[in-house]
Amino acid sequence: MPFPSRFKHCSNCGAAVDYRVPADDNRERAVCPACHTIHYQNPLNVVGTLPVWEADGRVLLCRRAIEPRYGLWTLPAGFMELGETTAEGALRETQEEAGADVEMGPLYTLLNVVRVGQIHLFYRARLRSPEFNPGPESLEARLFAEDEIPWDEIAFKTTRETLRCFFDDRRQGRAFQLHAIDIP
Amino acid sequence: MPFPSRFKHCSNCGAAVDYRVPADDNRERAVCPACHTIHYQNPLNVVGTLPVWEADGRVLLCRRAIEPRYGLWTLPAGFMELGETTAEGALRETQEEAGADVEMGPLYTLLNVVRVGQIHLFYRARLRSPEFNPGPESLEARLFAEDEIPWDEIAFKTTRETLRCFFDDRRQGRAFQLHAIDIP
Ligand SMILES: [Zn+2]
Ligand SMILES: [Zn+2]
Repeated sequence: MPFPSRFKHCSNCGAAVDYRVPADDNRERAVCPACHTIHYQNPLNVVGTLPVWEADGRVLLCRRAIEPRYGLWTLPAGFMELGETTAEGALRETQEEAGADVEMGPLYTLLNVVRVGQIHLFYRARLRSPEFNPGPESLEARLFAEDEIPWDEIAFKTTRETLRCFFDDRRQGRAFQLHAIDIP
Repeated sequence: MPFPSRFKHCSNCGAAVDYRVPADDNRERAVCPACHTIHYQNPLNVVGTLPVWEADGRVLLCRRAIEPRYGLWTLPAGFMELGETTAEGALRETQEEAGADVEMGPLYTLLNVVRVGQIHLFYRARLRSPEFNPGPESLEARLFAEDEIPWDEIAFKTTRETLRCFFDDRRQGRAFQLHAIDIP
């Protein structure tokens, strides 16, 4: 998950861009000397779920079949697309990566990962079935009890933090309110 | 706030892009026939605050000095930038647009505006002073009691919905929990 690479050419006309601070702005932007388009680069949203099988309280993780972090475990999540809400994107990723049938719950964690220009949003979700059908991005999808979580093989800090919040809240008997977390 | 316009050229090498579904994908993307870069377009985050002067409960609105919606009123908000968290971006916009000195509170509304490919995030904020110094994007910044809100001159639905949630919650004596709203 590298910081987005800088534009070299104008996506409108193809000319090589200059980097300068436009009038009425205070940051350097990619500006096209030919068609004068200003190109902005902005953070991206990653949306996913924390799917729970309520019969025994186990949570669903997927083992990544793609880089980065091939072979490590993650909550189902991916880049939000145009044309969908954050919750719709989270549901889509859960279906695509785990083939899981879930009922969506409320937003549970919002994690800022400034270093890579990403915001991760995880929704709680209730599994309707303990059967999965992982897609091509996952080697495997399975349920883990708290004491089975492979903490040393978790792909991303945002998954780790979301799991930690959930198990802490549940152990303390707290309501599952939104956790807003900045990842260093 | 139009839906993002489609790329015509590759921002890496400048060649004209094709639109097709890449292997291992299920959506049409801008693909470069020369350098093979795949260009994704994703939703953008708009971040802002709901600043309250607690001495009398009035809220801060800014009158827009720019298009779209020139002359209409809005909560201070703008596009999130790389290198900042959602809360840092919301604070920056509040300083830039209103010149307001605020103490940031928790996230209060998350609004999906799918039609324009945007997610709006508003944080509650406590004004430390009732004096403002609006920047070039605002004609004016001032405090409004609930019965003074210019409901017919609000620039964006996301401002209107956030104000409505706030006055409703306050009137009902409810805790100010997160509201997640989809804007049609
Ligand atoms: Zn250009
Ligand atoms: Zn190219």
